[in-house]
Amino acid sequence: MKSFRDPVHNLIAFGEEDQLLIDLINTAEVQRMRRIRQLGLSNIVYPGAEHSRFVHSLGVTHLARRFLDEDCAGERTRGAYALREYRQLALAAALLHDIGHGPFSHALEAVTGVRHERFTSAIIRSKETEVHQVLEAYSSGFSEQVARLIEKNFPESRAIVKLLSSQLDMDRTDYLLRDALMTGAGYGTFDVEWLLHVMRIGEVQGEPEIGLDLARGQSIAEDYIMCRYYMYLHVYFHRLTRSAEVLVERTLARAAQVGADLPGFPALRALLQGDLRLAVDGRKNAAEIGSSAITDYLELDDHLLWSALRAFSRHEDAVLADLAQRLLNRRLFHSVDVHSNDEAMMWQARMERVAHKKGLPAHFYVIFDQAGSQAYKDPYVGADEPDPTLEQIYLFDVHGNATELARQSFIVEAVKSRRASVSRVIFPREWLDEG
Amino acid sequence: MKSFRDPVHNLIAFGEEDQLLIDLINTAEVQRMRRIRQLGLSNIVYPGAEHSRFVHSLGVTHLARRFLDEDCAGERTRGAYALREYRQLALAAALLHDIGHGPFSHALEAVTGVRHERFTSAIIRSKETEVHQVLEAYSSGFSEQVARLIEKNFPESRAIVKLLSSQLDMDRTDYLLRDALMTGAGYGTFDVEWLLHVMRIGEVQGEPEIGLDLARGQSIAEDYIMCRYYMYLHVYFHRLTRSAEVLVERTLARAAQVGADLPGFPALRALLQGDLRLAVDGRKNAAEIGSSAITDYLELDDHLLWSALRAFSRHEDAVLADLAQRLLNRRLFHSVDVHSNDEAMMWQARMERVAHKKGLPAHFYVIFDQAGSQAYKDPYVGADEPDPTLEQIYLFDVHGNATELARQSFIVEAVKSRRASVSRVIFPREWLDEG
Amino acid sequence: MKSFRDPVHNLIAFGEEDQLLIDLINTAEVQRMRRIRQLGLSNIVYPGAEHSRFVHSLGVTHLARRFLDEDCAGERTRGAYALREYRQLALAAALLHDIGHGPFSHALEAVTGVRHERFTSAIIRSKETEVHQVLEAYSSGFSEQVARLIEKNFPESRAIVKLLSSQLDMDRTDYLLRDALMTGAGYGTFDVEWLLHVMRIGEVQGEPEIGLDLARGQSIAEDYIMCRYYMYLHVYFHRLTRSAEVLVERTLARAAQVGADLPGFPALRALLQGDLRLAVDGRKNAAEIGSSAITDYLELDDHLLWSALRAFSRHEDAVLADLAQRLLNRRLFHSVDVHSNDEAMMWQARMERVAHKKGLPAHFYVIFDQAGSQAYKDPYVGADEPDPTLEQIYLFDVHGNATELARQSFIVEAVKSRRASVSRVIFPREWLDEG
Amino acid sequence: MKSFRDPVHNLIAFGEEDQLLIDLINTAEVQRMRRIRQLGLSNIVYPGAEHSRFVHSLGVTHLARRFLDEDCAGERTRGAYALREYRQLALAAALLHDIGHGPFSHALEAVTGVRHERFTSAIIRSKETEVHQVLEAYSSGFSEQVARLIEKNFPESRAIVKLLSSQLDMDRTDYLLRDALMTGAGYGTFDVEWLLHVMRIGEVQGEPEIGLDLARGQSIAEDYIMCRYYMYLHVYFHRLTRSAEVLVERTLARAAQVGADLPGFPALRALLQGDLRLAVDGRKNAAEIGSSAITDYLELDDHLLWSALRAFSRHEDAVLADLAQRLLNRRLFHSVDVHSNDEAMMWQARMERVAHKKGLPAHFYVIFDQAGSQAYKDPYVGADEPDPTLEQIYLFDVHGNATELARQSFIVEAVKSRRASVSRVIFPREWLDEG
Repeated sequence: MKSFRDPVHNLIAFGEEDQLLIDLINTAEVQRMRRIRQLGLSNIVYPGAEHSRFVHSLGVTHLARRFLDEDCAGERTRGAYALREYRQLALAAALLHDIGHGPFSHALEAVTGVRHERFTSAIIRSKETEVHQVLEAYSSGFSEQVARLIEKNFPESRAIVKLLSSQLDMDRTDYLLRDALMTGAGYGTFDVEWLLHVMRIGEVQGEPEIGLDLARGQSIAEDYIMCRYYMYLHVYFHRLTRSAEVLVERTLARAAQVGADLPGFPALRALLQGDLRLAVDGRKNAAEIGSSAITDYLELDDHLLWSALRAFSRHEDAVLADLAQRLLNRRLFHSVDVHSNDEAMMWQARMERVAHKKGLPAHFYVIFDQAGSQAYKDPYVGADEPDPTLEQIYLFDVHGNATELARQSFIVEAVKSRRASVSRVIFPREWLDEG
Repeated sequence: MKSFRDPVHNLIAFGEEDQLLIDLINTAEVQRMRRIRQLGLSNIVYPGAEHSRFVHSLGVTHLARRFLDEDCAGERTRGAYALREYRQLALAAALLHDIGHGPFSHALEAVTGVRHERFTSAIIRSKETEVHQVLEAYSSGFSEQVARLIEKNFPESRAIVKLLSSQLDMDRTDYLLRDALMTGAGYGTFDVEWLLHVMRIGEVQGEPEIGLDLARGQSIAEDYIMCRYYMYLHVYFHRLTRSAEVLVERTLARAAQVGADLPGFPALRALLQGDLRLAVDGRKNAAEIGSSAITDYLELDDHLLWSALRAFSRHEDAVLADLAQRLLNRRLFHSVDVHSNDEAMMWQARMERVAHKKGLPAHFYVIFDQAGSQAYKDPYVGADEPDPTLEQIYLFDVHGNATELARQSFIVEAVKSRRASVSRVIFPREWLDEG
Repeated sequence: MKSFRDPVHNLIAFGEEDQLLIDLINTAEVQRMRRIRQLGLSNIVYPGAEHSRFVHSLGVTHLARRFLDEDCAGERTRGAYALREYRQLALAAALLHDIGHGPFSHALEAVTGVRHERFTSAIIRSKETEVHQVLEAYSSGFSEQVARLIEKNFPESRAIVKLLSSQLDMDRTDYLLRDALMTGAGYGTFDVEWLLHVMRIGEVQGEPEIGLDLARGQSIAEDYIMCRYYMYLHVYFHRLTRSAEVLVERTLARAAQVGADLPGFPALRALLQGDLRLAVDGRKNAAEIGSSAITDYLELDDHLLWSALRAFSRHEDAVLADLAQRLLNRRLFHSVDVHSNDEAMMWQARMERVAHKKGLPAHFYVIFDQAGSQAYKDPYVGADEPDPTLEQIYLFDVHGNATELARQSFIVEAVKSRRASVSRVIFPREWLDEG
Repeated sequence: MKSFRDPVHNLIAFGEEDQLLIDLINTAEVQRMRRIRQLGLSNIVYPGAEHSRFVHSLGVTHLARRFLDEDCAGERTRGAYALREYRQLALAAALLHDIGHGPFSHALEAVTGVRHERFTSAIIRSKETEVHQVLEAYSSGFSEQVARLIEKNFPESRAIVKLLSSQLDMDRTDYLLRDALMTGAGYGTFDVEWLLHVMRIGEVQGEPEIGLDLARGQSIAEDYIMCRYYMYLHVYFHRLTRSAEVLVERTLARAAQVGADLPGFPALRALLQGDLRLAVDGRKNAAEIGSSAITDYLELDDHLLWSALRAFSRHEDAVLADLAQRLLNRRLFHSVDVHSNDEAMMWQARMERVAHKKGLPAHFYVIFDQAGSQAYKDPYVGADEPDPTLEQIYLFDVHGNATELARQSFIVEAVKSRRASVSRVIFPREWLDEG
């Protein structure tokens, strides 16, 4: 028996029936998520937002379990039976879905060129990880099922995929609530009790689907979409957060260029010298990623990167040292919003002239940035729909007929037709006076 | 103008009249507090408790400002005038009071042998810190005043000292509320609005004193003391947190013993080789601590220590590597409560035999630990009173007469007469079967 | 000194500077608001929604005072000075703005044919009320100013009118927060701290105006409008609440028709026999309403109406007795939504046939109901704009230029273009099977 | 299916398996509880405290159900099985436990001389109530079982009695949480999630008992006792609330004395002329109370009493009219605390002289009042223990051994040894200057 206290869900307790989850929580790979902040650099703007991917993963597991144990338990439909059958699988996947995230997630992906999802799959499938061993000890072949479920390649049950990864999933539900509480930004809250209460397991084209009750669920669905919209606008795309992310990315790129290294940390060398990218490139599937690349990757955490920035701040390369110092002391680049290509090019040209005058490489000091909800695969707040069949929120009427939320709701329709992307040119604030 | 959103106080905004605070917030030394967790290793038990000393310091400043601007503003007593006179001083001290904390505070102090307060003073007084320069730019001699106030050596106003550092101060008020919210432990909440509402500026022996209204404040004072009691019992003295703290301390001690080092981080070498201790020992006052020691100390943060643990986990010294790995993967030592010296010695002897059998140094594997509120200077929950004149909570009746809380309240009297200390013997869990 | 604890705002304290408010609170007319529920019959659906107009009025006063004392205090603009000048006036008006409400407000207005605002004015101006006497004791002519301010006839300052009664006023702000908390409906919450923080006093066409900061206030304004929209949809227009309101109205109409009376309560007779209407009809202004009509009106409260329903439930007129019993035991009429005139007429005709068959007067059993936000003068959620100059929410940019919210926000624009009205035919549920 | 939104528990939903509860909720007797305020006259002090006994009863039912469905569900002990067996019975009793409360409960009991519990039993057993009929339709003899359970005369299971009515029952748990929220008094909150989490079904002397886990439950038990203590001190025994209760009692007594009546309300006459007392006196058990007495009693609600006070305020008896007016306009009597019999007699004599001088009957104007937690049968906050076997809070260790809370906890021991009673002499405030 293991219980956690949580600022969002109050009590998250695992009893005998969840021994698998307790064993997974005790693995080195899950414990590592304690050292990776959920919101990367957002705490630079919202100083309370220090929460880790570990506590978020517990939250997702808790919500998925509530849905399966409370909501499905009473339903005697085919869909509900199907979902309950995969209870252990769903909960293991909920706990592990973020296990491949590195520190400063988006900045790191820009450096490695490898999306974190590939590492998630590799960590679960690699025979040498504790997570893999626990899953296989539970049931032979279970790790493969978990990996496929997280990869949304689980034809056995599309509903279970949607519970974990869709427009209305337990992942988003937890992170919106958690990020809203921790940032202190008042926009992200919605009534999660009501949301769970009106969730339904229906059918669409003969397949079980997760959705909401049409009569009682439309307003909460709208509220949830609006929260998402505001969290993107005010938190995820915040000017300063993006500025910090861009700065981390350029600092690591410079470190790679000048061959900076931190003795004692082979993982950092693997990152900067492109070994991680090489380990993944050309591999058809995650299982082929070598175990040493996985070992290296798992050493990357917030602490290592911040320590590297500290060491880089004293590097002989003045550019690298300068960039790292800016991050450590929160002297971030300035950004200006641009509304057209011309405007962007004008600002870039102007600032590149300053860089030239100062003898500094413009690539590291003048950056064009486009932050879009597309990067977050969020069609409901304005990005393109990557996978139309998966990316729908259904409302079920009393007869079980499904309608798509955006068709039913003029509010969601209005939000959806807007693009939430922002374009900016980013450069040192003090250059404003010189350009 | 600068505003922060905060999970505890919602909005913390600094306007024109608080430009000094904005400038202080932007210094490297205050920004460094973002990299030091308020609760050190408590997140090992309470995964939500990741908040930094930075956000706590903002909270204390906010509460002190509310008291001065809202409560004092209407009062026309001598005490209220005296407090308002020191508004800027009080707020600067509130923001800076924790600036000398290192990572894993108590464990670090055990290694350096130097209490963090000495570094707080040194950082504020050292001509080379940004904090010092901002304070002096505001008003010549201001840094000395701030340092003295934090050192409780401020005869100009005992009330202002008590506002920041006493049994009922804004420091404790913020950390109890914040730690309770972030841990999710339901015990630590009390009604801070009512507490501020019934705070009074009275007089004791001719000097302005801060206290509470007798008729309306006794219950909130009791509630506040009870919250403190529960937070010690369940959070600050938690078995596993103490176990982790002890393990960090022994790991650093072992690293010092075997001369472990992390190239690129001179601060770590200074810590482990005793340079920090030397820099402080024998100095009569903080101002004499050399600037290079301060520079080194300021580099110590959570990230550096966790990265060092990572490097140590691969060290050739098997003991050091083992201790570090235990911390990284949360395989903490077991602890047994002991209720007498005999019991303690019995357990120590038994486990030292196991250590001997394994050829391991018992000093690093078998630890006798006494956690007491005394370490927290908390006479209200059972420790001795270090400074009777400062450590009293006064209740003022309508005539201005003061009574001490413990005299008035049978509940506080009951809590105060108990010692909240716990004695434990700590050792590897797996040795239980071998001893 | 007087302090109230409040579930919404925690602490509402009145000190020496607010003696006028304390005196007003102690009048019989303000105390009477304790006996009138804010949400009329909504507690039939939301059993927690029992809060009174008294506590709401305290909340509005508290918010207006926070705005004037906290937000305006720092501003040195012409508009801010103008607002502060009217502080006492604004707060008295905030406290008294609902003083003319009767029990079951909308149902009662349907019976009296007199809007509650006329009684508000009359109560404040009548020489015989305690409220009037307190206001005049404060300053001669003050009652007239308060009455004019509440009537929005206060050319001295349009900003102060808007603070109390506009699309973004302290009245709506309190009732949305309070109704949301008390109903337990999760939709109505928004971040009131942020709302107050971003409120601005700007100028539009040379006149001081209240609005929000453009850069920081648009999202909270949208959130506030959306909360309003959801509260209308789920609370104020709730099917069962409307059904109960319609039933009360018809019950009182029947009681008037059959000359029902309740000995000992002259106010009830005045209500049912049309004396209240007569007292008001033809009077040009409120001051002319006779004092006996005011006395009668002030006796009407929730208790009297519910007691009357109890007595009516035993009345010899079977229709009256039946209607009253239905209300007491919560056997409300059923309602069907209709989407066209034809559909409405079809349902009405069908149910009128049942009434005819049963020998019951259709007028009291078959009701066509249109609930619209128009009734609430709410142009932002779909009704017509009654007074375009007053009914705008302005956003001010850094240069002080004002934009109207609906122009700036595609979300508000979308909400505004929808009509939130609902049409229903209401009749006894058991007739469904007979029609 | 029926769901309620609730400010305390958010969502209280009844599904198919709880059709009995839905049917009971729809009875006239349960609906009547909507018209009786949980806290009687406390809203005179705490204006938010308007909540009804109806919503409290829903809350108790909800908590009892959570305990039975969540906590017991996993336990495979004899005690847990026994509890689950009585699920429907326990929930029906939870819903109905307060059904016999009248308006202004304690004041009314002083007038009738009959405790409300006798009416609770009578209402459930009387063949003519809807509640009785619904219970018997569910299962023949069920109403008798429910009545016995509420009367604590249920030898079949002492644990189920304790769940509903003991020192740690769901009744107290709901009312503490609810009263704390609604009054806005910050003292009454405790962590109900943790409380439910650490509740255990153990055995004491061979019988199933409800208690708490020793290791994890002691602090929450202490917190719960402390909340109770503060709620008595600040809410239930509040000087003004007691003053209002005493005034109601005396007003009704005077009305009885002068034969006041309110035409149209036979229930009021039955109350004032002693018919209710006669109907109960001499009856051995509740079943013998005549149905007309029950019918009368069920008509008594807050509305009727307030309307009667309104009518009495115009009564020809000047004393009755004066007392009623004081209540309506909140001009309550003053009270002075007395600490000895002598002091009490001194104040009484002094004020009785004033009464005599004014020609007023002292009995109605000068009242000696003792408010004690004893009246609330609360041995944990200082009253005597009425039934030692029922009134214990057990803590169970891992071996199932039970300890009583007050033995284990020095805090509870300290609270328990204090008597929370307060003695006061109550009289018109303006007499202070005349005596």
